[in-house]
Amino acid sequence: MKLHGKNIVGGEPVTCSGPTFQHRSPLDLAPLEPPFEEASPTAIHRALEFADACFGEFQSRSQQDRAKFLEAIADQIMRLGDTLLKQAHQESGLPLDRLTGERGRTVGQLRLFASIVREGSWVDARIDPPLPERQPVPRPDLRRMLVPLGPVIVFGASNFPLAFSVAGGDTASAFAAGCPVVVKGHPAHPGTSELVAGAINDAARICGLPLGVFSLIHGGPETGRALVRHPLAKAVGFTGSRAAGLALNQVALSRPEPIPFFGELSSLNPVFLLPESLKERSQQIADGLKGSITLGVGQFCTKPGIVIGIAGPDFTRFASQFKESVEKAASGTMLHQGIAESYLSSLRSMSSIDEVEAFAVSEVNQDSLPGAKGTPVVLKTSARNFIQHRELWEEVFGPYTLLIEADSREEMQKLAQSLSGQLTATIHATTGDIHAFRPLISALQTKAGRIVLNGFPTGVEVSPAMQHGGPFPSTTDSRFTSVGTAAILRWTRPICLQNFPEFLLPDELRDRNPLGIMRQLDGQLTR
Amino acid sequence: MKLHGKNIVGGEPVTCSGPTFQHRSPLDLAPLEPPFEEASPTAIHRALEFADACFGEFQSRSQQDRAKFLEAIADQIMRLGDTLLKQAHQESGLPLDRLTGERGRTVGQLRLFASIVREGSWVDARIDPPLPERQPVPRPDLRRMLVPLGPVIVFGASNFPLAFSVAGGDTASAFAAGCPVVVKGHPAHPGTSELVAGAINDAARICGLPLGVFSLIHGGPETGRALVRHPLAKAVGFTGSRAAGLALNQVALSRPEPIPFFGELSSLNPVFLLPESLKERSQQIADGLKGSITLGVGQFCTKPGIVIGIAGPDFTRFASQFKESVEKAASGTMLHQGIAESYLSSLRSMSSIDEVEAFAVSEVNQDSLPGAKGTPVVLKTSARNFIQHRELWEEVFGPYTLLIEADSREEMQKLAQSLSGQLTATIHATTGDIHAFRPLISALQTKAGRIVLNGFPTGVEVSPAMQHGGPFPSTTDSRFTSVGTAAILRWTRPICLQNFPEFLLPDELRDRNPLGIMRQLDGQLTR
Repeated sequence: MKLHGKNIVGGEPVTCSGPTFQHRSPLDLAPLEPPFEEASPTAIHRALEFADACFGEFQSRSQQDRAKFLEAIADQIMRLGDTLLKQAHQESGLPLDRLTGERGRTVGQLRLFASIVREGSWVDARIDPPLPERQPVPRPDLRRMLVPLGPVIVFGASNFPLAFSVAGGDTASAFAAGCPVVVKGHPAHPGTSELVAGAINDAARICGLPLGVFSLIHGGPETGRALVRHPLAKAVGFTGSRAAGLALNQVALSRPEPIPFFGELSSLNPVFLLPESLKERSQQIADGLKGSITLGVGQFCTKPGIVIGIAGPDFTRFASQFKESVEKAASGTMLHQGIAESYLSSLRSMSSIDEVEAFAVSEVNQDSLPGAKGTPVVLKTSARNFIQHRELWEEVFGPYTLLIEADSREEMQKLAQSLSGQLTATIHATTGDIHAFRPLISALQTKAGRIVLNGFPTGVEVSPAMQHGGPFPSTTDSRFTSVGTAAILRWTRPICLQNFPEFLLPDELRDRNPLGIMRQLDGQLTR
Repeated sequence: MKLHGKNIVGGEPVTCSGPTFQHRSPLDLAPLEPPFEEASPTAIHRALEFADACFGEFQSRSQQDRAKFLEAIADQIMRLGDTLLKQAHQESGLPLDRLTGERGRTVGQLRLFASIVREGSWVDARIDPPLPERQPVPRPDLRRMLVPLGPVIVFGASNFPLAFSVAGGDTASAFAAGCPVVVKGHPAHPGTSELVAGAINDAARICGLPLGVFSLIHGGPETGRALVRHPLAKAVGFTGSRAAGLALNQVALSRPEPIPFFGELSSLNPVFLLPESLKERSQQIADGLKGSITLGVGQFCTKPGIVIGIAGPDFTRFASQFKESVEKAASGTMLHQGIAESYLSSLRSMSSIDEVEAFAVSEVNQDSLPGAKGTPVVLKTSARNFIQHRELWEEVFGPYTLLIEADSREEMQKLAQSLSGQLTATIHATTGDIHAFRPLISALQTKAGRIVLNGFPTGVEVSPAMQHGGPFPSTTDSRFTSVGTAAILRWTRPICLQNFPEFLLPDELRDRNPLGIMRQLDGQLTR
């Protein structure tokens, strides 16, 4: 399967005669073929026009049709077979087994959203029957349900070339909601993006959907801004760095018509180690933490960035076990050379801060590992110093964490309360610890979207109860999640139809409930 | 009951020694006693500190306790009896029967939210049981529910001194969600605000809640900005003018930590009159429209601001019937002198636009009506002219509408598609019209939050299926509603608890479902 390197607009590759870019494989830093064309303003405009033009038709298709489309995308991705996995491996450096798992997650997400829309109750249908005799005024017939917002811009993320990229969770949930999608592919895996875009187009053809329902746009930051600024765009899904996300958020909010921007930006994912848990199982925690920090070469948004304990012999023992574990951890290939360089430069800045000590560095000899290497590193400081130095609060993307020693329970509490918004917060605690540290557990619930007890934050389940989104600045909108079935709610708004005759109502709101969905009838949930 | 004219912070009147303001009754323009003190920066800061300090306790109370609090507020408002109605009448000029009805709506809202939280299913609880044997990795125990955001700022609206003011829909829904509230009272009914604030404080005392759960702040625009800017504020509810709302929205979004701002700003609420409906019942539509435009002296956010028909004999007959009906409609007292002056000045600007004709003016002699008077007026223009002149798109607060004649069905469709976001859109249509104008009905569903068929948009039901919120700029966030039971969702975010032991879980998420609420268990809705 030969890649063409072009933008794909309304189902067809379009030639853009401007600049091209070429990604270098992180495995050996060699440039990968072909070069990819950056989208012209015309290509961007046409992608949005196509999306807008087919919105009415796509939205009016039954939920069954949307479910079939999502399943067809999953099937077409699987049909790409090893070609897709090898391309993603070349471009991202991620091992084939990880990519095989990520592909499973990607098609699993698509099929999960298919099941959600096939079942149909997610539209939160509500029917208030009319009360014609009510005094002083009658109540009209009111029926409400969620409807799609319109064309959605999705930014592919570098760290999940399949699961959070072209046909990832944002795209799957937007299609499920009934929104056409324009993806800004991540420039660190353009070939993977092209392959998956082909799978989506094939699925649209198989399902007889208008091809404007999906376009893939290549380019850099200005291309991203142009997409977000476009008047026909109605919402944006973004996973990436805080700086890029906040800049795009600003673009979305300063449009003449501001649009919702769902940015999943960055997080320290603090891990609190309570005294009794360290007494009981410090080795187990040390090993688990090492695993969580080095998983995927530390390139997960839920990687623990700070680990906090209270000074004492148990903490000291844990620290030395953790040090030993990290020193034995191997380096890995990072997603691209730019990330590897940022990792080194962040480590240099962090280490140069007062009272920050280089605590553990991998001692595995991997000089022979070519390409973009990331080496496990732990720095250490005091809670007082951490609270004072906001530079230590920056997310470091890579196999790194900061070990923080608090003098007392009060200082640990103070640190917790000083934190900004987080995707996750983790606590290792015995039952005794839980009773002794209730204020800490309460404080963390105001800081994070997910609270993990006696586990590790990496590994984000795609399920109904998942919440992947916390208070600002971990995400731009803590009221929504980018992972799990509730992610579909990001792309919708409620509409109320008053006094509509039965024949003009969508199936979801008809009297006899032909879809058999759960609805609020006069405030009572019923099928 | 003597009014003290002070800000009420954490249950107690506090003295602020800065400027005071005195509202003039719109009935006779006489200044009302006492003067009210504008809040000092210290009073504002203390109100937020109190709110923040009690958030943990208020949030941790059972939903039963919150329901009792809401019901106690309703009871205490009723206990104020005629004192409250008379005060509101003096301050707002609204007739006593309207205020009696509005009080009914206000206590009805409070009791409705009490029933919602007592039932409890609104928290959207979701439980994914653990799958310890799953390959390649086990699934942890995940439990998710909605939790309150924190202290909420509510801006009282001038046009609903009870139902959208101190204990109105925003406050009721925020308390229901578990958020402390700081109200910025509207300066056009400060005495009414003080009375209702007393009722809330009494209810908090009766229920043994911390008094920091509610404060009332008086002042002008700078006071409003200071409240929205305050770092302890976590969300804002606003109903008012577009200019004031957009300015405050900007303040909310440019904070170091941006917060959700729910602004219900303004709307033209277009009414489309389709040909067969005019042939069949032009007189009935003309009378209904007159009623909708003059209801509450045209001071409802859902008042029809434009009425569109297609040129022809039926439209001409309707227009003359409408003219006759409006000429017989009486003037009324507006909410305050400023609004009455704005109304006149808006009418002057609108009338001076090219090709805008003064079509109908009330001929009822009401020279003897003292105070802030609003007289029914209809202007008329062509669809072409309306589309060209954006000045005609401004909301005019008062008993006014713009009658628009389209040359053809295509021009009517073009006008509909050119509209910006609206709270409501209304269509008068026979079954034949509906079939002939499907594209119009589809287009309007992308423009508005509520679509009314063969009715009028005024009269916003407080019920589960209501949607009072449309695409920008009618509101700042079309994904939420400010009226109806779903309004509670504005003040919440989801949180996921992973691997929490049963004893640490809130009742909503415990295995045995002690509250008996509807939950998603492994994706299936069940009690």
